[in-house]
Amino acid sequence: MKNLSIIKIGGNVIDDGEALRQFLQNFAALPGQKMLVHGGGKIATEVAASLGIPARMIEGRRVTDADMLRVVTMVYGGLLSKTIVAQLQACGCNAVGLTGADACVIAARKRTGWAAEYGFVGDITAVNADALQHFLESGLTPVLAPLTHDGQGTLLNTNADTIAAEVAAAMAASYRVELIYCFEKPGVLAEPADEASVIPLITPGSYAALKTGGVISAGMIPKLDNAFAALNRGVAEVRICRAAELQNPAGGTRLVEGEE
Amino acid sequence: MKNLSIIKIGGNVIDDGEALRQFLQNFAALPGQKMLVHGGGKIATEVAASLGIPARMIEGRRVTDADMLRVVTMVYGGLLSKTIVAQLQACGCNAVGLTGADACVIAARKRTGWAAEYGFVGDITAVNADALQHFLESGLTPVLAPLTHDGQGTLLNTNADTIAAEVAAAMAASYRVELIYCFEKPGVLAEPADEASVIPLITPGSYAALKTGGVISAGMIPKLDNAFAALNRGVAEVRICRAAELQNPAGGTRLVEGEE
Repeated sequence: MKNLSIIKIGGNVIDDGEALRQFLQNFAALPGQKMLVHGGGKIATEVAASLGIPARMIEGRRVTDADMLRVVTMVYGGLLSKTIVAQLQACGCNAVGLTGADACVIAARKRTGWAAEYGFVGDITAVNADALQHFLESGLTPVLAPLTHDGQGTLLNTNADTIAAEVAAAMAASYRVELIYCFEKPGVLAEPADEASVIPLITPGSYAALKTGGVISAGMIPKLDNAFAALNRGVAEVRICRAAELQNPAGGTRLVEGEE
Repeated sequence: MKNLSIIKIGGNVIDDGEALRQFLQNFAALPGQKMLVHGGGKIATEVAASLGIPARMIEGRRVTDADMLRVVTMVYGGLLSKTIVAQLQACGCNAVGLTGADACVIAARKRTGWAAEYGFVGDITAVNADALQHFLESGLTPVLAPLTHDGQGTLLNTNADTIAAEVAAAMAASYRVELIYCFEKPGVLAEPADEASVIPLITPGSYAALKTGGVISAGMIPKLDNAFAALNRGVAEVRICRAAELQNPAGGTRLVEGEE
């Protein structure tokens, strides 16, 4: 089986032009087949504010109404995706920027019921692994924006961590997949304020204990839940690290499925 | 040689949601391999105005400064491209939205010298016909936004009529290419105010006479120059018609290379 690296890059790096440029150089230098999933960063909120579109939040989560959907389509699908692709091309990486609608790579269903109040938010129903594999085998590096579509003509806002995990799980049927979540911290921390307290290894058993003990912050739990779900579904390795540590296999926190 | 239809759709249709939806249904229904090139419409100007970015014009042409480049990257590369792709997917057309940077399909050089004052505007230096052919042979329908890149990490604003003509010429080496410019009028008009005055056929000889006689409006001349240049470079057919006449081979104005 060929190796495939799926890298997710989060908001704080995306919001910092110089950090993003450095990260993209490191990403471009990674050997082998790879894919990038990018988050949204603060730019969508800034653009929405400049356009006079209020950010509506329910319990800390953004509401994607029709106006906000236009903004995230502009910012995630246009500004971020195409800026990243152009910079990767300059680094010799033959990137192609995709939303879930492009080549129908990720289909989703708009949330209904109680969750419908979050607006145009999509839960993934299908990852088109064949289409993504075809891009990879053509020598292209897919760059995935956090947008999916419902197949009826509507784009949907979808969390980038979830996209990374779902795509990794889908690709695991054909590749040995390594999933790396890059963010602004050096890994999962035992003490949120102490960057030297990186937990080097988490197993399902130690994860349960860390959650019970309140060691892991609320914000990390969805990311780790996604990551363990991906391991369960055949992803070979998951690592959570600082963007600058992308090329250091020992950097950050490694998640493994069994008890080591 | 296989047939390839390259359709350019202009601003007035893009600005009208219902007209665009109808056009995309007609486009999706076209048989055989095809590609769509879309213009920008007025939305970029509206978004720029809402963001407080003044539209700077020199001799009637838009100046693309750094702020405006961000806006057109959002609007052309994101909002328009991805809205079109999602709607085509709903019509069963497996589209992929691309700028020139994606898969490095169109490289350009930023205008220099006297033209540098127009800002981030790109003149096409290379169309990657192999990459576009690969998309087509994979069953995908490329949707090209009016953005190119310089290979050094910078996106550039490029006229959509020119992109359509350059791509058509490049693809003519491998396909029998039909290039159709769709816009809001029924064709090239002998009397600008009379929509019944469509000129059904223009040859290089009659074009020269129409220009000399002042029959053809200044705005049509770059479009027709592009079209005749494409015919010169091997494109089999060029037609200029109303968007609603896309599927009517007798609709609009046909341009031919020889004298008929």
